[in-house]
Amino acid sequence: MSKNLTSRAEDYSKWYNELVVKADLAENSAVRGCMVIKPYGYAIWEKMQAELDRMFKDTGHQNAYFPLFVPKSLFEAEEKNAEGFAKECAVVTHYRLQNDPDAEGKLRVDPEAKLEEELVVRPTSEAIIWNTYKGWIQSYRDLPILINQWANVVRWEMRTRLFLRTAEFLWQEGHTAHATEKEAMTEAELMNNVYANFAQNFMAIPVVKGLKTESERFAGAVETFCIEALMQDGKALQAGTSHFLGQNFAKAFDVKFTNNEGQLDYVWATSWGVSTRLMGALIMTHSDDKGLVLPPNLAPWQVVIVPIYKNDDQLDAITNRANEIIESLKSVGVSCKFDGRTTLRPGAKFAQHELQGVPLRIAIGPKDMDNNTVELARRDTLTKEIIPMDDIGTKINSLLKTIQEALFTKALNFRDSHITEVDDFETFKSVLETKTGFISAHWDGTPETEQKIKELTKATIRCIPSDVKDEAGKCVLTGNPSKRRVLFAKAY
Amino acid sequence: MSKNLTSRAEDYSKWYNELVVKADLAENSAVRGCMVIKPYGYAIWEKMQAELDRMFKDTGHQNAYFPLFVPKSLFEAEEKNAEGFAKECAVVTHYRLQNDPDAEGKLRVDPEAKLEEELVVRPTSEAIIWNTYKGWIQSYRDLPILINQWANVVRWEMRTRLFLRTAEFLWQEGHTAHATEKEAMTEAELMNNVYANFAQNFMAIPVVKGLKTESERFAGAVETFCIEALMQDGKALQAGTSHFLGQNFAKAFDVKFTNNEGQLDYVWATSWGVSTRLMGALIMTHSDDKGLVLPPNLAPWQVVIVPIYKNDDQLDAITNRANEIIESLKSVGVSCKFDGRTTLRPGAKFAQHELQGVPLRIAIGPKDMDNNTVELARRDTLTKEIIPMDDIGTKINSLLKTIQEALFTKALNFRDSHITEVDDFETFKSVLETKTGFISAHWDGTPETEQKIKELTKATIRCIPSDVKDEAGKCVLTGNPSKRRVLFAKAY
Repeated sequence: MSKNLTSRAEDYSKWYNELVVKADLAENSAVRGCMVIKPYGYAIWEKMQAELDRMFKDTGHQNAYFPLFVPKSLFEAEEKNAEGFAKECAVVTHYRLQNDPDAEGKLRVDPEAKLEEELVVRPTSEAIIWNTYKGWIQSYRDLPILINQWANVVRWEMRTRLFLRTAEFLWQEGHTAHATEKEAMTEAELMNNVYANFAQNFMAIPVVKGLKTESERFAGAVETFCIEALMQDGKALQAGTSHFLGQNFAKAFDVKFTNNEGQLDYVWATSWGVSTRLMGALIMTHSDDKGLVLPPNLAPWQVVIVPIYKNDDQLDAITNRANEIIESLKSVGVSCKFDGRTTLRPGAKFAQHELQGVPLRIAIGPKDMDNNTVELARRDTLTKEIIPMDDIGTKINSLLKTIQEALFTKALNFRDSHITEVDDFETFKSVLETKTGFISAHWDGTPETEQKIKELTKATIRCIPSDVKDEAGKCVLTGNPSKRRVLFAKAY
Repeated sequence: MSKNLTSRAEDYSKWYNELVVKADLAENSAVRGCMVIKPYGYAIWEKMQAELDRMFKDTGHQNAYFPLFVPKSLFEAEEKNAEGFAKECAVVTHYRLQNDPDAEGKLRVDPEAKLEEELVVRPTSEAIIWNTYKGWIQSYRDLPILINQWANVVRWEMRTRLFLRTAEFLWQEGHTAHATEKEAMTEAELMNNVYANFAQNFMAIPVVKGLKTESERFAGAVETFCIEALMQDGKALQAGTSHFLGQNFAKAFDVKFTNNEGQLDYVWATSWGVSTRLMGALIMTHSDDKGLVLPPNLAPWQVVIVPIYKNDDQLDAITNRANEIIESLKSVGVSCKFDGRTTLRPGAKFAQHELQGVPLRIAIGPKDMDNNTVELARRDTLTKEIIPMDDIGTKINSLLKTIQEALFTKALNFRDSHITEVDDFETFKSVLETKTGFISAHWDGTPETEQKIKELTKATIRCIPSDVKDEAGKCVLTGNPSKRRVLFAKAY
């Protein structure tokens, strides 16, 4: 395993791509734009899944599973949604292969096995789910429906990057149905708050909560709540979205219910999702030129123990000591792995664990055995200390909490120092190019201005922050009146 | 929710289909052959997943994720595998839809967005995975690779049934790579044993372990281990398979490694899987004419509490009592739900919980409040008793274990009484038609005889049991010599 990562300063994009591959997180596959998520990367994703799943269930949601395929006629029912995804749909047209008469040992699509109606591989599941909900909902007693699905989806992206933008990705998509507009709106905001809490408290990634502008909204949504994070290169990353869908899908699929006053009405909807893109956010928030830096909550192994020995007797003694430590850590809920590989030297092991972001490394050598100590190295600060064996479980457990908090604080400081209030367009452009980050500026509220700023600077409105104060001002481009500032940035 | 299930005696197949839908487990979707797994059904599947995942990890496996799509050229590389699945492949040929110029508001496949190479939606992942492993394996130090994937797969089945045979289904597929034939064979058998333990100890489904005959083997396998269960109608169900793949895939994808003697050799492989089909096995092993019967290990709610009251004061008192019970059960790890719905009468709730197979039902009325008792009803035996509140947690916890064991014993007795040793073909046919179940008979070992028996009786060889004794005999059809008995049955 080579340690020679391109530095972030040299080429951030290259650093990212190399890190994902060298840290054994994921790699490109033989299928254009589709990735293989390797065991180490998948173990991190599993930790995200487990925590999110717990949070969804705590807020009353249940999991279910809906078909991978959407018949074209259902897909096109909600026009805006269909329009938004039509250009990136993988389409199944046939259901059989046959021997190729022109090429021995090869197969070809059987022309006689053409589907009467093409099937779209789901880019998102509103259509198939609302077509299903139609059969489940008659009265207000059937509401709310609070369902989440863990699934793969496919969006045929032309330029792909591991985790950040792939043709197939893994995600969860919540789809809820409600009797009132207010309840649906509350749900959409609740789930955006769940995402924000998850990002901040579990992933140690600070996020801005807010609403998308009309042009950045999910296709088919009335409002899109979002959480936006800031990467180390000063570009924003949309980390999760939660949509208030109004009655759009209920109307498209004719889903009506009898309310408690006996009247028929269309059902109100939300949908919300986060994906393996969060892996990209994780990497680009915390990692450094030496490799991955993992918050303890997400580390497949929170602690690794490397023995340093010259003979088998020493190894035996150190192994026994390591097992004591592992037991002690296990009892306080900390995961720890003993790296007893005989094919690698300690230095190579150190390099690998550094590259893979293990939060704490313990090294134990003969001197430590004599002194009843271990050497403890922090991945985030790259500091080392010798600590006594006494109370090692408690000490490490508390240190892991410190690291989790330190990573969040560091990222928060970076993010906060990269939100710049700007009131004129020249400064807007120069801050964007030099300082980078979020620009807090007035906007006149029109899609035209938004579009023009995008054309001129590549910056888009990432969100209208929910905690922003009303403040009269003038649009940074047109000078037209504005009621509040919004956040602009270049984005992933 | 209607309780009127067709009885098993009347029409077993109809009973099954009705039960799956009425118990809210799954339903057919708008996509031919694809099902919607509803929250109650999915909650059961999640329990299976969690236990299997734990067992896989305990045996050293890690999860990963590989692409949904397999390029046709990779798919056809292992010829037997390709041949086995070619007839049931969903094929993606295009990557974009566009507005249909002939129909306002409709979409059509964009003829200019045709893929250069078609993509097969994975019916199984050996091809894409072995093509990936090629890049991971150079030397024996890279082995073994012990990976599992939780995924959806698609096999375009013409006749589908909820859970048992669907075009898309959920499963796990393990794919391992080894340095020696022996190690791979050991792995394949180990994972079949994991499946057997899971089926018997967790799902309370007795299974026969054994090997498939050549004609029933997985396409591309050298040996297929399997577990076979017996349903209440006397038909067998293949509940899981584990394949020793030899070097077939390594050769097809040119995956060689340097062994510890410095020589190049092809890598040895296994694959193994179980799917949502297990839901079908679960239903058809334990359930009865009143609905689902769930082993406590698999019940989303192990206990449900139904209050019986005439006024709000009574309801309040009963609710407090219920909360005490829930706390007490929680402390011993038992899940319990209070059914406080005001829209349903107790009788309707009883009927629903019976239909949905909740293992234990507690009813609490005013008299129980006076006497410090509850009424406890067992779903499996349909028996009721009044029990005192004292030690209710311990009592229920122990009763759930009793139920889990009782369900297994009942199913085992049924299965064992439906394995019939038969030595002539007339008896073979009559046992198959009247008594049904497994027939233990001699077979001359040829695919021709196997095929002929299938044509004459619809029975196939389900497995060559691993615990069968060598016993010289004569083939039940041809009279040719045979060394051991095999198990025949009609099968799902």
